[in-house]
Amino acid sequence: MPEPATSLSRDKALIFIPEDPRPEWTSKLQVKYPGIQIRWHRSIDENGALVSYEHLPGEVWDDLTVLCAFAPPPAKYLRNVRFVQLTSAGADKWMQHETYKDHRVIFCTTNGIHPPQIAEWVIGTWISHQHHFSRYESQMRRGYWEPPYSSRVQDSTRARMGILGYGAIGRQCARLANAMGMDVYAYTRTEKTTAESRKDDSYCVSGTGDPDGLIPSKWFHGASRDEVDTFLGQNLDILVISLPLTESTRGIISHKQFEILSVNKTFVCNIARGGHIDQEALIRALETGQIRGAALDVTDPEPLPRDHPLWKAPNLLITPHVSWLSDYYWDRILDILEINLENLAENKALINVVNRQHHY
Amino acid sequence: MPEPATSLSRDKALIFIPEDPRPEWTSKLQVKYPGIQIRWHRSIDENGALVSYEHLPGEVWDDLTVLCAFAPPPAKYLRNVRFVQLTSAGADKWMQHETYKDHRVIFCTTNGIHPPQIAEWVIGTWISHQHHFSRYESQMRRGYWEPPYSSRVQDSTRARMGILGYGAIGRQCARLANAMGMDVYAYTRTEKTTAESRKDDSYCVSGTGDPDGLIPSKWFHGASRDEVDTFLGQNLDILVISLPLTESTRGIISHKQFEILSVNKTFVCNIARGGHIDQEALIRALETGQIRGAALDVTDPEPLPRDHPLWKAPNLLITPHVSWLSDYYWDRILDILEINLENLAENKALINVVNRQHHY
Ligand SMILES: NC(=O)c1ccc[n+]([C@@H]2O[C@H](COP(=O)([O-])OP(=O)(O)OC[C@H]3O[C@@H](n4cnc5c(N)ncnc54)[C@H](OP(=O)(O)O)[C@@H]3O)[C@@H](O)[C@H]2O)c1
Ligand SMILES: NC(=O)c1ccc[n+]([C@@H]2O[C@H](COP(=O)([O-])OP(=O)(O)OC[C@H]3O[C@@H](n4cnc5c(N)ncnc54)[C@H](OP(=O)(O)O)[C@@H]3O)[C@@H](O)[C@H]2O)c1
Repeated sequence: MPEPATSLSRDKALIFIPEDPRPEWTSKLQVKYPGIQIRWHRSIDENGALVSYEHLPGEVWDDLTVLCAFAPPPAKYLRNVRFVQLTSAGADKWMQHETYKDHRVIFCTTNGIHPPQIAEWVIGTWISHQHHFSRYESQMRRGYWEPPYSSRVQDSTRARMGILGYGAIGRQCARLANAMGMDVYAYTRTEKTTAESRKDDSYCVSGTGDPDGLIPSKWFHGASRDEVDTFLGQNLDILVISLPLTESTRGIISHKQFEILSVNKTFVCNIARGGHIDQEALIRALETGQIRGAALDVTDPEPLPRDHPLWKAPNLLITPHVSWLSDYYWDRILDILEINLENLAENKALINVVNRQHHY
Repeated sequence: MPEPATSLSRDKALIFIPEDPRPEWTSKLQVKYPGIQIRWHRSIDENGALVSYEHLPGEVWDDLTVLCAFAPPPAKYLRNVRFVQLTSAGADKWMQHETYKDHRVIFCTTNGIHPPQIAEWVIGTWISHQHHFSRYESQMRRGYWEPPYSSRVQDSTRARMGILGYGAIGRQCARLANAMGMDVYAYTRTEKTTAESRKDDSYCVSGTGDPDGLIPSKWFHGASRDEVDTFLGQNLDILVISLPLTESTRGIISHKQFEILSVNKTFVCNIARGGHIDQEALIRALETGQIRGAALDVTDPEPLPRDHPLWKAPNLLITPHVSWLSDYYWDRILDILEINLENLAENKALINVVNRQHHY
């Protein structure tokens, strides 16, 4: 009796990632989907250099139907592929690829693997600022114990966080802010008036995020700068930038916006892309005290040159595009792959499917 | 017709705190409880010096029934007092006082005004450590952008927080840890097997804490050191010390305990009292890498002398007993006073009543 077509018994997957093969993971899937073939090759060598597709044994491509990889292999290898699990949040590298242009092939992103660590980074930089940690660190170097009542602290119970881009990352920032007693305002591109529209079905580490969109007390939306400016004027204590960088979001925070933020001296956290902020305007805002401080995990350009004036701006923490780092990074990508193989086997809709208009 | 005895119409309150009188607050209560008399005097002068009770107009003491203050006035002034709202977490200053010895007088503490800001401090120091913020700060001073993959980060989604002292402060630490995806283990003095015993009825800023005790996945208890050591052996990633300092908790973390914590290189956060930790053992644990790091808001002695070796221990953040600071401190104390006046008026049990055995 033939296996039912939905059991993946005729599928062959290639996993090509910078991780060593995990035999337990592979066997688990082989037990679950008898007949499935899985090839796993490490995509970087012992010296950390990328392995080229040409170096893989030729047989991996025969009848390949599922690919999990970062860079696109030549289209000729992918004739039978029906599902590509990317290991990145965007599909930019694939935009001109024949396989990508074939809309029957499902492409999925890693959306949702970053929120836990990036939200920690956001809340950590906010608390460090509000609680003056770096001042205490420098006082430690002098063995100086500051006298009582030298400092003031505004705790977060009455603070408001504005999240510009209420997607996977923004939602976990909201969860932490909410636990601290903060009020949360959300901004999205599309309108979210119904409970259904507020949901986010993409991958979410269990016990984190706000998949149903229940946390924000107020929602804002729109693609125009005026609408964003209205949002920035909502007496925010902290602004989190967690938007994709597109032509409509480039330079979205500039002189005029810092002027608006100056009313409440909003703390600005950018974990999205350097291009979202006009850096000259940011330096000015920090130097003149328009805002109380800022934290950037992303700059323009990257790496930031050694003599760039941003390094010297006051009340600023810069980290070198590391907020996404997590020891559980690949576990989560394999988790998404596993969920999507199950969806494929059961003929269900996959998660994290690329939007072919926005390519992420 | 006389007012009912429960309406506070025969009560007279003295508020003696380092804050300016707040006429709106006073009027609100006077409207709510017609006939109540409220006197409010600032307890520090323009130079920040404490005002002595002798300097208050003598009439404030006539028929006084309610006192909200820090230091104990002479007992002769308090003959008619029935309720004392302390402005501290403990009643140590009152222990020998005649009014305190009279068990008909209700004494209440400020328990619950600190958790939001102290939990922020705990989570902030933990994230700063896990995400290497201070290394990035020092790299900023050199304009150095570290190359990709130089760092590793363990995010908190699989971490376990052990809370030694699951009271008001511990519960808000648990709430934040839980939002980050952490597993939480709780330790208390008394056993908490029933849902009822896990509740904490003391003051809690709305939207914070864990008043019903629902967050911990496992509860531990006991007053013996062996039981504490068993708790420390539970593969904790972070240990929060949020215990009162008593004879049975002094030096509770010493050489043997760091040995136990070394298995998982537990990060140690102490916001309770310096005396909980044997500082020599801590310095050794940090220098030999038994633990990954520590954060102390309290030391022994305080201030920590300029030449104390603790200042130079690696992977340690010390702050000068400031984690309790919040701009909303007095708002919360007045909030407790207001709740307790209402309870008094309605003949209900007050909140935050001092335990006359433990004096807090
Ligand atoms: N620092 C790092 O290491 C790192 C790592 C990962 C990602 N990132 C950056 O973070 C961004 C967000 O990631 P994510 O995973 O949270 O993305 P996501 O789940 O796709 O969410 C993006 C959000 O931004 C909103 N949005 C899109 N275009 C907008 C516009 N023109 N104006 C206003 N809002 C707009 C979307 O609104 P709708 O809901 O209406 O679509 C959505 O709420 C990424 O695009 C990337 O740039 C940085
Ligand atoms: N750094 C600062 O600025 C600052 C500010 C405020 C307070 N503190 C310190 O933090 C401590 C905790 O404050 P809190 O408001 O959270 O207190 P709390 O609400 O009274 O809670 C204390 C907790 O400790 C437990 N406990 C008491 N004795 C114990 C023992 N011998 N062994 C194990 N557990 C024991 C209690 O157990 P049960 O539930 O069984 O009673 C309770 O769960 C205070 O005592 C103070 O030392 C520091």
